[in-house]
Amino acid sequence: MDRNVESADTKEVDVDVASLSWSHRHTHDDDHVSSFEVHHKVGVPSKQNLFKEFANGMKETLFSDDPLRHFKDQSNSRKFVLGLQAVFPILEWGRGYNLMKFRGDLISGLTIASLCIPQDIGYSKLANLDPQYGLYSSFVPPLVYACMGSSRDIAIGPVAVVSLLLGTLIQNEIDPVTNPLEYRRLAFTATFFAGITQIILGFFRLGFLIDFLSHAAIVGFMGGAAITIALQQLKGFLGIKKFTKKSDLISVLHSVFSSMHHGWNWQTILIGSVFLAFLIFAKIIGKRNKKLFWVPAIAPLISVILSTLFVFLTHAEKKGVAIVNHIEKGLNPSSVHLLYLSGENLLKGFKIGAVAGMIALTEATAIGRTFAAMKDYQLDGNKEMVALGTMNVVGSLTSCYVATGSFSRSAVNYMAGCKTAVSNIVMSFVVFLTLLFITPLFKYTPNAILASIIISAVINLIDYEAAILIWKIDKFDFIACMGAFFGVIFASVEIGLLIAVVISFAKILLQVTRPRTALLGKLPSSTIYRNVEQYPEATSVPGILIIRVDSAIYFSNSNYVKERILRWLVDVEERKKKEYSTKIQFLIVEMSPVTDIDTSGIHALEELHKSLQKRNIQLALANPGPAVIEKLHASSFTTLLGEENIYLTVANAVHACSPKVVEEA
Amino acid sequence: MDRNVESADTKEVDVDVASLSWSHRHTHDDDHVSSFEVHHKVGVPSKQNLFKEFANGMKETLFSDDPLRHFKDQSNSRKFVLGLQAVFPILEWGRGYNLMKFRGDLISGLTIASLCIPQDIGYSKLANLDPQYGLYSSFVPPLVYACMGSSRDIAIGPVAVVSLLLGTLIQNEIDPVTNPLEYRRLAFTATFFAGITQIILGFFRLGFLIDFLSHAAIVGFMGGAAITIALQQLKGFLGIKKFTKKSDLISVLHSVFSSMHHGWNWQTILIGSVFLAFLIFAKIIGKRNKKLFWVPAIAPLISVILSTLFVFLTHAEKKGVAIVNHIEKGLNPSSVHLLYLSGENLLKGFKIGAVAGMIALTEATAIGRTFAAMKDYQLDGNKEMVALGTMNVVGSLTSCYVATGSFSRSAVNYMAGCKTAVSNIVMSFVVFLTLLFITPLFKYTPNAILASIIISAVINLIDYEAAILIWKIDKFDFIACMGAFFGVIFASVEIGLLIAVVISFAKILLQVTRPRTALLGKLPSSTIYRNVEQYPEATSVPGILIIRVDSAIYFSNSNYVKERILRWLVDVEERKKKEYSTKIQFLIVEMSPVTDIDTSGIHALEELHKSLQKRNIQLALANPGPAVIEKLHASSFTTLLGEENIYLTVANAVHACSPKVVEEA
Repeated sequence: MDRNVESADTKEVDVDVASLSWSHRHTHDDDHVSSFEVHHKVGVPSKQNLFKEFANGMKETLFSDDPLRHFKDQSNSRKFVLGLQAVFPILEWGRGYNLMKFRGDLISGLTIASLCIPQDIGYSKLANLDPQYGLYSSFVPPLVYACMGSSRDIAIGPVAVVSLLLGTLIQNEIDPVTNPLEYRRLAFTATFFAGITQIILGFFRLGFLIDFLSHAAIVGFMGGAAITIALQQLKGFLGIKKFTKKSDLISVLHSVFSSMHHGWNWQTILIGSVFLAFLIFAKIIGKRNKKLFWVPAIAPLISVILSTLFVFLTHAEKKGVAIVNHIEKGLNPSSVHLLYLSGENLLKGFKIGAVAGMIALTEATAIGRTFAAMKDYQLDGNKEMVALGTMNVVGSLTSCYVATGSFSRSAVNYMAGCKTAVSNIVMSFVVFLTLLFITPLFKYTPNAILASIIISAVINLIDYEAAILIWKIDKFDFIACMGAFFGVIFASVEIGLLIAVVISFAKILLQVTRPRTALLGKLPSSTIYRNVEQYPEATSVPGILIIRVDSAIYFSNSNYVKERILRWLVDVEERKKKEYSTKIQFLIVEMSPVTDIDTSGIHALEELHKSLQKRNIQLALANPGPAVIEKLHASSFTTLLGEENIYLTVANAVHACSPKVVEEA
Repeated sequence: MDRNVESADTKEVDVDVASLSWSHRHTHDDDHVSSFEVHHKVGVPSKQNLFKEFANGMKETLFSDDPLRHFKDQSNSRKFVLGLQAVFPILEWGRGYNLMKFRGDLISGLTIASLCIPQDIGYSKLANLDPQYGLYSSFVPPLVYACMGSSRDIAIGPVAVVSLLLGTLIQNEIDPVTNPLEYRRLAFTATFFAGITQIILGFFRLGFLIDFLSHAAIVGFMGGAAITIALQQLKGFLGIKKFTKKSDLISVLHSVFSSMHHGWNWQTILIGSVFLAFLIFAKIIGKRNKKLFWVPAIAPLISVILSTLFVFLTHAEKKGVAIVNHIEKGLNPSSVHLLYLSGENLLKGFKIGAVAGMIALTEATAIGRTFAAMKDYQLDGNKEMVALGTMNVVGSLTSCYVATGSFSRSAVNYMAGCKTAVSNIVMSFVVFLTLLFITPLFKYTPNAILASIIISAVINLIDYEAAILIWKIDKFDFIACMGAFFGVIFASVEIGLLIAVVISFAKILLQVTRPRTALLGKLPSSTIYRNVEQYPEATSVPGILIIRVDSAIYFSNSNYVKERILRWLVDVEERKKKEYSTKIQFLIVEMSPVTDIDTSGIHALEELHKSLQKRNIQLALANPGPAVIEKLHASSFTTLLGEENIYLTVANAVHACSPKVVEEA
């Protein structure tokens, strides 16, 4: 550690150092101290062979979680059991299942069942499907998931956003009113391909792809979708008969207000308002007191029962209150023969399914991760995707549409004390009983209640607190968030989604094209070099410019990095001119954060070296990482620059260069 | 600097240190030394206001080169002059122009003119246009560029790859044989939009977008295009009349061999081979002796003259040797009325133009940068784009097709000693004379000579040395390179280009999703912590795990980073178990390379903190940068973690944590 380089700030150092009774000693120690660290050379890692290098890269990309860890050093039969358990985790946790756990699962299962039944009926309307399809989707998929999934808290079934997305996308292709069968066929086909997409992503361990949708974009998208869904509910809530098929704010408001004088039904509005007030009140109670979480959870079912009774007794349906009228009784019929397996509709189904499948994954993964982190258990994202995918493929064969993990029901599940996926089995069983026996009782359920239930459910998706936090933390993220939000509200779900994806990618690309660079200075009486903007007390070393590049140098930024470094040089030299201080003679690039470099990057370094040579400035590199130093060697840049100009630390570099600086007027 | 933490490797330290006569002193210094650095707190930069922050971000992204630097502190009239000079650099350098410079420009201008005339005639064939359009494109665009461009070495005109690309893309829409006029109209329309695209990219300072095409992908694409072009020349070279319109290797070879017995013309082959041998010989001479650079430069023109004379004298055209036959005499006619300004063809023209314009930019920018670096002058990439764009827009109105900077001619221009863009004016003047007086003389020029000239020109585009270097440096880059190469050869130019773009983006995305992390160890007898893979001598500190994250933590990688850190922990703990050593009690994350963080990243840190707490491990952060520390404060993560767990350096963190480590059996 070269304590003799502080010619510019000796005074300051002396003061500092004297107070620590260090000063008179440190001048003597110099040579020892410096040779003391200088003997560490910049390490060049031993060259891996090609196959190993490639295998490591693949492993880190696709198998970063080392999923085969448990299979090491096991007998074949044990491997078979482990493999079976890996595909069906129920075989693993099922063995330790006991009555205590079942108690928790039973209560939570019953709670989410009471929540899911009214939601399912409402959500299937968002997807332009008959109410029973929502119930079907809460029967088969949860069973499949319970066997294959590894999350203990997720509650499976149809969700609002995916239902809306599916409804919008399929409606663009086929009219659900004039061609209900074809519409349904396309819905099942899309569900099938949503499942296939999820399985493929999981099986080929490409799950990380969904990470490309940024958190901010998701917050905006979800919020926008929630508002869009709520607006759609105005049809049922106000009892409007003629309603736009578009989902943007302007079309919907136009529909609402143009029908104000003759289309609204005050009886409907009254029933809807009363129960919406009740639902929101229940929500507030649940929020105030965490122990009363079951109040908002069963409030929807209570609303349905009370309002159905009310309509049945008063015969309000004759006063224009729209009712559900008919839900098919019985279990899921097979839909194997309904899938489009050829022709144009196959392609359409694939496209819609892929999009819906990805969005469904995003939601399920976010939920799964959240609860896994809360209870601190590991979740294999890719295995989860295979489970969700299989569940949707099986669902598509049994008249279900895309199911996934639901935010609201999973939270209730967690709060009700679920222990394992058995709560999904309980819920599924309740839905099974409902389908067999109870559906006819929903005949007099007013649509306005379903609208109120959906409105009160989707309100939770508007995460304004997250939006405020995003605003505080990162303005660009906030733009992404708002872009997705307003895209969904003013254009459509697809446009909003597109905006979210595009902005997310733009952010990634900007990040790699315009990496930060920083001017480093020496912290007084230390050998630590830090960003002068962050540490205003850091001082420059005369004749030496130290710049840190804060990113891997790749083709996308190599040119920028080179020019930015030269601009730092020009900036500093202009300032120096005014101060008549020593001319810059060394430029040290701190490479610690430069994790990798490619051919373009090396080319940029060569050009930088050439430009600096013309100005009589020596380039030096400090602390290049393993990948970088290996490539610098491979390309012979080290020879061009001179091995002696590559240092272990900035301090070492300054120590070596500083004595060579020639003082000028 | 905490030299008392090396309980694990004290022995080693003592040996090292004793030899430096340091040991007995350093134990006394400990407290001084550590308090000595600890008093530097992690700096939190003063909060910028929103507008300033946004403005800085925009500036760094779009105006990173500070183009308005010269306008500061100038009078208005001076600003006007500077503005005019900025748009027309000729006004700036023209004032210092002198006879000495003109001498260099005259010689180089004449040299590139002799090279460009035969090339232009050949390249226009690649674009499926009549020969005069190639010459037109070497007349007007160079003049415009000379006034507006800032590169001194670039030689403007049609180039092989863009001609091929344009030819392929337009041919997909309109058949050049049956509808030559419509084909030409679309070509001009595409040229117009190529120019508009270039102007827009430059004006809105989006020039960095072309950096997204990686060097490796370009090398592969260019090599593939060169081979495709050379294969296309087999038609002229072998005198085949019926030739495929496809450009892939298999179709072309099929065409060539199926016509072997009746379609080849031996006289054509003879003439072509002789002159190809001559051209290649000239090339070798030029390569051996840099002073003879003019030999390969004028060889094409000599070949044309000799072969034309030969055909004229022997009347070989009657023996089946295909000749040029007719080149329109006279200057560029106006093509303003030919542009498609509405309808379907407008859209097609726009698409083709945008692609061709981007590729043309890529080539011109690469050339401009190369020569600017060699002569060490600054080039404003965005201004260049405006110049190139204007030149193509003007060109599209005067019967030119897309022109750009040519690799081969620019190199000749440079070697011939050009000083300014005046060499382009000289070349343009020679082309002007050619168009006015000499074109009829090309009547008897055999097509085989043009084929030979093109083959010998495009050979240079196969940069196998770059490919070898790429292989050495980065295997993934090599795959990108080969993907583009084989895509062009076996599929088509568009497919190759698509592969190049997709692979380039995939690389960027992989880079940000799977950032590197490294386990750090202490270099013996120092306070430097380095990657243990790179420095095998680095040792771990008992009870403390130090991990460096080598990237900004964003939504795209936050989850991976969290899980990777936990996996490091599991890995190390498993190893520790076997060694019966101290349990990990502190996890220090070295944040120096973490240049930024977003909401997802902070969320991941929170989850990490929570997971570690459950395992009784304290998280500590070392050296977070300005953006990171600001956001950690904004989100209150610093409060959650405790300010005291954020350290200036890893050494400080270890110094603080190490005494708290509890030893176990």
